[in-house]
Amino acid sequence: MKTHRKELTLHVKSRRGFVNITPDVQAAITESGIREGLCLVNPMHITASVFINDDEPGLHQDYKAWLEQLAPHEPRRYKHNLTGEDNGDAHHKRQIMGREVVVAVTEGRLDFGPWEQIFYGEFDGRRKKRVLVKVIGD
Amino acid sequence: MKTHRKELTLHVKSRRGFVNITPDVQAAITESGIREGLCLVNPMHITASVFINDDEPGLHQDYKAWLEQLAPHEPRRYKHNLTGEDNGDAHHKRQIMGREVVVAVTEGRLDFGPWEQIFYGEFDGRRKKRVLVKVIGD
Amino acid sequence: MKTHRKELTLHVKSRRGFVNITPDVQAAITESGIREGLCLVNPMHITASVFINDDEPGLHQDYKAWLEQLAPHEPRRYKHNLTGEDNGDAHHKRQIMGREVVVAVTEGRLDFGPWEQIFYGEFDGRRKKRVLVKVIGD
Repeated sequence: MKTHRKELTLHVKSRRGFVNITPDVQAAITESGIREGLCLVNPMHITASVFINDDEPGLHQDYKAWLEQLAPHEPRRYKHNLTGEDNGDAHHKRQIMGREVVVAVTEGRLDFGPWEQIFYGEFDGRRKKRVLVKVIGD
Repeated sequence: MKTHRKELTLHVKSRRGFVNITPDVQAAITESGIREGLCLVNPMHITASVFINDDEPGLHQDYKAWLEQLAPHEPRRYKHNLTGEDNGDAHHKRQIMGREVVVAVTEGRLDFGPWEQIFYGEFDGRRKKRVLVKVIGD
Repeated sequence: MKTHRKELTLHVKSRRGFVNITPDVQAAITESGIREGLCLVNPMHITASVFINDDEPGLHQDYKAWLEQLAPHEPRRYKHNLTGEDNGDAHHKRQIMGREVVVAVTEGRLDFGPWEQIFYGEFDGRRKKRVLVKVIGD
């Protein structure tokens, strides 16, 4: 069994944004030499998500508006912000979108349907953050 | 280390529906010959979910009503639908219910509590869709 | 390839509560002798979650209030409760917070960013429940 670990660094300049990291994840799989196995992708931060959906700008705008409805930024709404933070909403948005994805690796490739793409979802950006890719298999 | 890959095909005749795929996932594990490991189950589509919960029809009705509240079908609500689609809501519902499950395989069986069952959750049906099962272990 | 299986037992005395199980998961990894691989952590029950976020009491209060908004306890709201249960809300709250986490194991440790902590999220407590930890790797 082989394993491979890689960190991606992301810097979203605005508070919120989605970045397609599919090519970076595929590159990590290719580097690993693993042909069959599983690949975990997760942010190492708790105000961000990794999720799989469509690379369609209208949908991404929809997601942002919807997450703002479900967990508005309004700093006074959150007890968490009494610690001096203003990112209580980001901790909630990340739970809706999920922390991590686990994807199958088959014949050295992401084993995906035609529209599946992996996104980094940032909810408290304007600084560097890390995404972990861990591949295991043969 | 061994791996096994299987595709299930589902065809939900209505727009939305939940299908218990636990026996199909167990069959894939049995075919694999893997006794100890992990099993990933995910739709290869982005308007569907795989999730684990109770096989109870009242709960499934509750989920459908609740998802309709959180992300109503109303086609004009979503910028995504400006692409000509009418399934913007389905991309949102799938994020609430999640994309995939990862389950433990122990002594060749799904390592489950008494009520855990695996469901395919369709939010934009009336056509064939694929679910990927990938098992890794020994 | 090695695998290791461990069950944790939790007993949250109130209906809802969050318990930091990070040290228990690390202990299971250490026991396994696995240095590189993946670790799955999931409740064996369908009214509970395992999730990763901050160990900050204000945030946990925020989560509880928010989940109560998104899926209120109100027993009459849920068809599921016609079965004699009063935990319909718990099945919904668990979907928001997710069922399981998969985490990377690197050099025998949880491969985490500085703030990541693993929580058991109970939504229908006052009885013993089990959490499964399954580690695979080398």
